[in-house]
Amino acid sequence: MLFFRNDYGQGCIEEILSLLKEINYENITGYGLDPYCNKAKQLIKNQIPDLDVDVHFLAGGTIANQTIIKHILKPYEAVIACDTGHVSTHETGSIEATGHKVITLENNNGKLIPEMIKQCFDAHMLSYEHMVYPKLVYISNATEFGTVYTKEELMKLRDVCDELGLYLMMDGARLGQALMSSVCDYTINDIAKWCDVFYIGGTKNGALFGEACVITNPNLKSHFRFNLKQNGAMLAKGWLLGVQFIGLFENEHYFKCAKHANDCSKMIQDELIRLKYPLYMKSDTNQIFPVVTKEQFNYLSSEVDFEIWDKRNDMIVIRFVTSWCTKQEDVESLIQLLQKAVDLK
Amino acid sequence: MLFFRNDYGQGCIEEILSLLKEINYENITGYGLDPYCNKAKQLIKNQIPDLDVDVHFLAGGTIANQTIIKHILKPYEAVIACDTGHVSTHETGSIEATGHKVITLENNNGKLIPEMIKQCFDAHMLSYEHMVYPKLVYISNATEFGTVYTKEELMKLRDVCDELGLYLMMDGARLGQALMSSVCDYTINDIAKWCDVFYIGGTKNGALFGEACVITNPNLKSHFRFNLKQNGAMLAKGWLLGVQFIGLFENEHYFKCAKHANDCSKMIQDELIRLKYPLYMKSDTNQIFPVVTKEQFNYLSSEVDFEIWDKRNDMIVIRFVTSWCTKQEDVESLIQLLQKAVDLK
Amino acid sequence: MLFFRNDYGQGCIEEILSLLKEINYENITGYGLDPYCNKAKQLIKNQIPDLDVDVHFLAGGTIANQTIIKHILKPYEAVIACDTGHVSTHETGSIEATGHKVITLENNNGKLIPEMIKQCFDAHMLSYEHMVYPKLVYISNATEFGTVYTKEELMKLRDVCDELGLYLMMDGARLGQALMSSVCDYTINDIAKWCDVFYIGGTKNGALFGEACVITNPNLKSHFRFNLKQNGAMLAKGWLLGVQFIGLFENEHYFKCAKHANDCSKMIQDELIRLKYPLYMKSDTNQIFPVVTKEQFNYLSSEVDFEIWDKRNDMIVIRFVTSWCTKQEDVESLIQLLQKAVDLK
Amino acid sequence: MLFFRNDYGQGCIEEILSLLKEINYENITGYGLDPYCNKAKQLIKNQIPDLDVDVHFLAGGTIANQTIIKHILKPYEAVIACDTGHVSTHETGSIEATGHKVITLENNNGKLIPEMIKQCFDAHMLSYEHMVYPKLVYISNATEFGTVYTKEELMKLRDVCDELGLYLMMDGARLGQALMSSVCDYTINDIAKWCDVFYIGGTKNGALFGEACVITNPNLKSHFRFNLKQNGAMLAKGWLLGVQFIGLFENEHYFKCAKHANDCSKMIQDELIRLKYPLYMKSDTNQIFPVVTKEQFNYLSSEVDFEIWDKRNDMIVIRFVTSWCTKQEDVESLIQLLQKAVDLK
Repeated sequence: MLFFRNDYGQGCIEEILSLLKEINYENITGYGLDPYCNKAKQLIKNQIPDLDVDVHFLAGGTIANQTIIKHILKPYEAVIACDTGHVSTHETGSIEATGHKVITLENNNGKLIPEMIKQCFDAHMLSYEHMVYPKLVYISNATEFGTVYTKEELMKLRDVCDELGLYLMMDGARLGQALMSSVCDYTINDIAKWCDVFYIGGTKNGALFGEACVITNPNLKSHFRFNLKQNGAMLAKGWLLGVQFIGLFENEHYFKCAKHANDCSKMIQDELIRLKYPLYMKSDTNQIFPVVTKEQFNYLSSEVDFEIWDKRNDMIVIRFVTSWCTKQEDVESLIQLLQKAVDLK
Repeated sequence: MLFFRNDYGQGCIEEILSLLKEINYENITGYGLDPYCNKAKQLIKNQIPDLDVDVHFLAGGTIANQTIIKHILKPYEAVIACDTGHVSTHETGSIEATGHKVITLENNNGKLIPEMIKQCFDAHMLSYEHMVYPKLVYISNATEFGTVYTKEELMKLRDVCDELGLYLMMDGARLGQALMSSVCDYTINDIAKWCDVFYIGGTKNGALFGEACVITNPNLKSHFRFNLKQNGAMLAKGWLLGVQFIGLFENEHYFKCAKHANDCSKMIQDELIRLKYPLYMKSDTNQIFPVVTKEQFNYLSSEVDFEIWDKRNDMIVIRFVTSWCTKQEDVESLIQLLQKAVDLK
Repeated sequence: MLFFRNDYGQGCIEEILSLLKEINYENITGYGLDPYCNKAKQLIKNQIPDLDVDVHFLAGGTIANQTIIKHILKPYEAVIACDTGHVSTHETGSIEATGHKVITLENNNGKLIPEMIKQCFDAHMLSYEHMVYPKLVYISNATEFGTVYTKEELMKLRDVCDELGLYLMMDGARLGQALMSSVCDYTINDIAKWCDVFYIGGTKNGALFGEACVITNPNLKSHFRFNLKQNGAMLAKGWLLGVQFIGLFENEHYFKCAKHANDCSKMIQDELIRLKYPLYMKSDTNQIFPVVTKEQFNYLSSEVDFEIWDKRNDMIVIRFVTSWCTKQEDVESLIQLLQKAVDLK
Repeated sequence: MLFFRNDYGQGCIEEILSLLKEINYENITGYGLDPYCNKAKQLIKNQIPDLDVDVHFLAGGTIANQTIIKHILKPYEAVIACDTGHVSTHETGSIEATGHKVITLENNNGKLIPEMIKQCFDAHMLSYEHMVYPKLVYISNATEFGTVYTKEELMKLRDVCDELGLYLMMDGARLGQALMSSVCDYTINDIAKWCDVFYIGGTKNGALFGEACVITNPNLKSHFRFNLKQNGAMLAKGWLLGVQFIGLFENEHYFKCAKHANDCSKMIQDELIRLKYPLYMKSDTNQIFPVVTKEQFNYLSSEVDFEIWDKRNDMIVIRFVTSWCTKQEDVESLIQLLQKAVDLK
């Protein structure tokens, strides 16, 4: 069975396993205040030469989103996200569980549109006090559809946030893949300037687990570790997370892993296009969304592990995901299957 | 200045003021456990001969919605409401503040469509555990647009709730107006059979304040008063709320008040139709929504106190609201103004 | 039956009822933005000539405590209160329901001791990040035991709060009674200087309902009305609360009501002392706590409505409460009963 | 520097590292629904032959406590814990953050006393509706003081819970150490019969991280994974946690690790007693609490890494903790230092 189900279906890069083994019997300070976390933080700070940022490590995306948003917002404040945003849907109401409304706007290829943010904000101001106060804009980059914000789009989002006094947060569960996409014309350092807070996802890019939260806005730095602890997000053996990011950033594995995933994905998507499979959405990163017939679906699913994304009339939107450890031979096998399936109606 | 701004802009019916004065120096038990609350509860139970219900009094609509929904839902459960529902918009995130997501569906003339509930539920089941569990359907009757659910619509909602294992809750902030509308072919007793919980709004129908929450589902009755107290909704002088509902139900003033408001409204809406003003929504109750030009708006707003509902291109949707104490002469004056304004372009 | 059960067992002073009747058919702006609320706010501001304060009206003590504390604290911050404080016990966990721990310290005659606050704060700092951050000190004045903080005590509390960077909040459900006690050597204006926020209780001093929250610290003023609304504490007919405080403050009824209650109480307590009844706590205000035998208890409870406070071996601590409308003849009747009961063993 | 600071200062047993390495490139289902989690669950179920239990894995103690308690309690319900309980103090208010009060009772050597639970419950029933409803009893075993509940004590706790309708939860962050202590005369299977829910701590007994939550009460099983996900406790690569418990339970390493830690501890404590160091608390497990003079403290702290527990007059309570990987030679070195320090005054 070929595996194209997701990018969190295998362990981690060798460097991380080796380091874990190497330091297994060292006596290490708890709760993320150890030399490994410090080194990992420094490696991330090295990516952001222009700003003095705070870095914190959390185990996964949902707890990162929840802890960050809870940290930022006052009780009556809300977050704006698009309807496909992870916080809007697939986190079992974890943001609302902390007391905050997620205001959802229609997505445009998985992205938020600055004009719609302005419109939404204005509508809320009209019913001042009787509606929540939108205070934070949440975007995912890469998006849940595999698309990537351009520099111009991000600068416009920053502008509308500045105009309206909003914070901008980037969910970077697949930030590496965004940065390595052909669409991307900016760096982590740029992102740090545009966003008040963002995180660098490890779980979906070669780590066992872990997201590195980067707080750039000085007003948001204070007491974050209290919220970490309260939210159950402070690991006793915090260095486990530090080790992940040492592994990912010490020799640029973070970028290499993401590039590998994107490259595999591009080969598949290019072939899909060549074969004239309809695409639900043209992807810039490691998730691709062909639309297949029931017969094609049956044929493919007997050989490949993938996800159903949506059903539309007689067609099925499926999702292939490549990862840091997708094998070249598996890509080729998938391509052969797609070639064979193309005429199944 | 003619007042057609809302239905909570004056005090209360005489009976309530009299009773307050009459019992002012009596020694009365606190926290709603007094003879006046008991009598008011009995008057409401008399409206529901077919069921054994629990009745609780709360000060207003937002705190009623918040307390009831918090009482019913488990942490991961959510409420389904239409996008115009009061809990979706104009309660400053009070439901989310208790930890629960409000899933919003597009309204149909202010109403929820059973098919959309089913579709929404199914979509959530597909991402089981990764999305909230929709467990409660919230409707307003009359709706925020002044429309009223028919018997058939309510029975279909009950059916879909039964099919999916959902609770059905009716926000009855304007329940009297719904019951007295020409569309309505059911009674409070019927509503009690269809809904697991609903409330009878006093604030917008002749009381100083107060909503009577009726719990019909035996599984939802237990420990409600704990949540009342925790939520700050248990008044020390709880009898104040009992007195409101004695005043409203002892001599059917609740129905008379609502009928009066509806009758005034009908006169105005009929004239609007006769004069060929466009209507944003044809109302069945005491809120009406003419669409006027800027010139008409300017003319009317110099003489009448009303609300702007929406702006669409060059036209303005305005809202007139009549109430239990709208004067016949004011209705006539408004009609005259509308006649004069009709040709202003 | 003589009524000495509590101070919220009757309606309100005549002035409030009259004003309600007088303005019953006026058209009034909703949500507390009306001329009556404005006038009431001004009357309260007149008591605080030295500061520019914000005033908000809420329906009762629990919802006031909950809304204020939620407004002030960040998620990881906690409130310090004494173990007899209302927020620590008799509000069904309403503070915890908003996410905040109430750290309870042992009371000293119902009061908090500055040294214990310091000690508690220091202990929390030792486990920095692993324990909540104490940020707000909550006191009741008069206390739940009827005692009253002296000027010196309050200034010391202010000092310790300043030293540690804490906010100071006074629950003034019985503030009138505190101000009118013989112990009190300060004014509302002084309280406003010492506290970051406090409220002036109407419910237990002659109003139908209502507490006037006074925010003195400019950093705490912003967006309070959002929290009011979200918490269900913003009444549609907000002027009802304004009317209460016009009634209480226009002709100093607030002070007269409290003085009357205290005077009645003093007569009873003086007689209890003369008759050598043990006192659980010597009260400065309108709550008194004699300790009686079972026989005395049985005798008294057949003639008087009062509360059992505690049981200790064979003795029973009972509570008599006087109020703004306690009748002189009832005080005399109670005294006669106490005289008759004195030898019952 | 000798390390006796805690039992979470090193990595994990070899078996876990090996298994991680072995399966690193396998394609594995996400979110804890994989064969490794299933195997680990079965290994734990094998310890509980008499009951059909549910097992879930969480990353750490705080998130386990928070998720379990939130899952069990209704909004107005509270947990009873002793004042030294982890949830009462060192979790930064994580239980209150979910809306629930932690009612703290005075500890007896780190344990809860059944009579005090009864007394506490009764006191809450007296103020029914005005106080929270105590519904869950939380105990730690081993306790935060290293003591262990006896069979008789646990059965009495179960009895009082049955009598009052309370749930019983055991925080087993150091359950292995409790089970391997000389005091313990029961098994995991017994614990499962007495507790409605408990967890088996991996983090402090040889795992990289992870606690295995065991739900024994059928009424508490439903929808736990929704709360896991909402609370950010569901790892994408959930098998990482399964691997920990395969490592710990496949060859009884869980018990061996704990026994080793206890044995090391006993050697040190026996020597402390022999040398007549005062003990703050006689420990049954791997935490020991000598009381030392300032001179002894200075001498020891230059050679040993340990925690200060408390200060009392001129004496200092310190804590030594042994673990699954404490070296015999380190125990001997510590003993030598203690012998040298004994006369330092």
